[in-house]
Amino acid sequence: MDLETIRKMDANDPLLSFRGRFELPEGVIYLDGNSLGALPKATAARIADVVSREWGQDLIRSWNKNHWIEAPRRLGGKIARLIGAKPHEVVAADSTSINVFKALSAAIQLRPDRTTILSETGNFPTDAYMMQGLAKLSGGRIEPKLLPAADIPAALDDQVAVLLLTQTHYKTGRLHDMAALTRAAHEAGALVIWDLSHSAGALPVDLNGCDADFAIGCGYKYLNGGPGAPAFIFCAERHHDQVFPALSGWLGHADPFAFKDAYEPGAGIDRFQCGTPGILGMAALECGLDLMLEADMAAIRAKSQALGDLFIALSEARLTGFELASPRDAERRGSQVSIRHAQGYSIMQALIARGVIGDFRAPDILRFGLTPLYTRYEDVWLAIEALVEIMQTAEWRETRFATRSAVT
Amino acid sequence: MDLETIRKMDANDPLLSFRGRFELPEGVIYLDGNSLGALPKATAARIADVVSREWGQDLIRSWNKNHWIEAPRRLGGKIARLIGAKPHEVVAADSTSINVFKALSAAIQLRPDRTTILSETGNFPTDAYMMQGLAKLSGGRIEPKLLPAADIPAALDDQVAVLLLTQTHYKTGRLHDMAALTRAAHEAGALVIWDLSHSAGALPVDLNGCDADFAIGCGYKYLNGGPGAPAFIFCAERHHDQVFPALSGWLGHADPFAFKDAYEPGAGIDRFQCGTPGILGMAALECGLDLMLEADMAAIRAKSQALGDLFIALSEARLTGFELASPRDAERRGSQVSIRHAQGYSIMQALIARGVIGDFRAPDILRFGLTPLYTRYEDVWLAIEALVEIMQTAEWRETRFATRSAVT
Repeated sequence: MDLETIRKMDANDPLLSFRGRFELPEGVIYLDGNSLGALPKATAARIADVVSREWGQDLIRSWNKNHWIEAPRRLGGKIARLIGAKPHEVVAADSTSINVFKALSAAIQLRPDRTTILSETGNFPTDAYMMQGLAKLSGGRIEPKLLPAADIPAALDDQVAVLLLTQTHYKTGRLHDMAALTRAAHEAGALVIWDLSHSAGALPVDLNGCDADFAIGCGYKYLNGGPGAPAFIFCAERHHDQVFPALSGWLGHADPFAFKDAYEPGAGIDRFQCGTPGILGMAALECGLDLMLEADMAAIRAKSQALGDLFIALSEARLTGFELASPRDAERRGSQVSIRHAQGYSIMQALIARGVIGDFRAPDILRFGLTPLYTRYEDVWLAIEALVEIMQTAEWRETRFATRSAVT
Repeated sequence: MDLETIRKMDANDPLLSFRGRFELPEGVIYLDGNSLGALPKATAARIADVVSREWGQDLIRSWNKNHWIEAPRRLGGKIARLIGAKPHEVVAADSTSINVFKALSAAIQLRPDRTTILSETGNFPTDAYMMQGLAKLSGGRIEPKLLPAADIPAALDDQVAVLLLTQTHYKTGRLHDMAALTRAAHEAGALVIWDLSHSAGALPVDLNGCDADFAIGCGYKYLNGGPGAPAFIFCAERHHDQVFPALSGWLGHADPFAFKDAYEPGAGIDRFQCGTPGILGMAALECGLDLMLEADMAAIRAKSQALGDLFIALSEARLTGFELASPRDAERRGSQVSIRHAQGYSIMQALIARGVIGDFRAPDILRFGLTPLYTRYEDVWLAIEALVEIMQTAEWRETRFATRSAVT
């Protein structure tokens, strides 16, 4: 495999035109779109318009005139198309963490005789943390339990109220079998919450095809919604009317502008709204969604798998001392490749200094996000070339690459 | 009182220069800054820079390089200066509703033997709604109770865990006596949460001078942080280490980037962070805060009271059929004047059509926000003139003013 062959792969890429729709800095190979997606070119002008015209000129009237009040539902309907949901089953709101709490607290209401909320050890920590906060608050009624993935099916006993799993593992990119695990949980009488933070926009998701109960996910990774973008929550239609939301804020009320003392849940998914939505964040997320909805998800998945296969092939041909942390089988892998190295932190810092941006996840993972709308096959080649040089020159040993910064 | 006199008041206003720091639409008298504050001129350029340079060019590196990760604490420190708190007692995060839940769930942990969470009937509904959600989740351990303001002191018995009050009433602008009510609650062994949504940036607040336990508030009203701006939460230093947050998200962890399975609360106020902060919203809020911190809060309060007194004097001299809904005594009134009229909705729509923007709160309140940084005495005069004409011509009876829109 040489560079000429790889450039032909880019030339023949059916998603080729999307790269030009993003602002990408000169001299940077960006392989961290699974942490913060790149900036769509349309976003800056849209945000400027929201700030100057909608806020500055139309002021409070924008809630109606510029449809701010509909943003959580409108964006939810767009996200629904990416995750196999109906438009009225998804709302954009709050952070992923807050939406985990909403889904968990709803699920335990639907299984009032059960005590366990179950997840996986090594899951993205906020899922486990939100479980622990809810359990403390329940005063002992609810018990959080974390088990290795392999032990989860056998642990689905008649005390499990809900199973919370992240479909695509944030460190390794390993994919859970959503259909099989949802079926197993349902057979045990439990509900399932799918965390789609590393799935939405990265691969085809079919929540209703899998009969999922709840899902939550992140707006700032593959959806390119900007730093700290609003997150989303899915609740299957069959559960809507049976849930009294724990985070019962005024915008989830059946008639928010009646200003009544008593909370009455809004119709359907509306009850999963809580406070006033952040409109700048919503506007940026909508730009990311609109761009993604122009692309064919099957083409995104095919390219993502090919990029990952290329990364693995080149890294194994050119590098020694690294261990593949992601599934080799593209069908079992999300849109990233992770490799392990005991000096991973310093190696990643040296890579970033060369303009190849991936990220490090403690203790030893170098993580490379593959975002088919703007990642080229050539980027994978160049990233591996840089890594080869860093290992040959041992420049990662320089002291400037040894100090851990706040966010890595 | 004639227009010439009023224009002299504007000419002598020590806050005169601040009006030019805001983008205000031509032909509009904006008296709704208590619902959505106006756009500071500095904000558009700052947001454009955050989008194009920080997100677009620096990408994931901005969490360190451009100090995104510090935004919740940095903005919290700025808000602290406006509300009589120490910098490490406040964090900007999430929505007001979510922060109400954080404060309530923390307070009931600090009073584990008590069952009642108490607030006022007719309080801004999200406070009462969040109480109801928490109570449902507690499975009966916690009982929410709403009483008229006058009955609250007598209801502070040994079962009250926490009293949640909004200092400035959203409809009438009536001020609670924060010092006296906090003292009464403490004497009964209860804690107090102050909702400062209509206070922060509108009048001097002295949380620590009143020995307050918790406070929460809104970024998009008097702080001019933009639509759906991040909210804030204050927790008195003495409580920090005793609270295990119910909304225990990853950014409240003691070491978020260690990605451990077990939640360990962050130091001090950090534990009241939850998910990833929305950086566009944070950036806009910081522009509003920086502008407000240039102004003298005593001057803001003095002008606010004078604007309110003028509004009341002119409305009573020129209008009949309206009833004053706000306290006449400026010491007992926040930064708004509200008047009642059975046809309030249609009258407000007619006013808005003339470019005088206040808002309506069901069933009969016309609410006028007075924001001393950009409201002129002349604006009050012109608003009353418009109201007089609308009543004289009866134009509010036109059918186009009769239909209720989604947000009013």
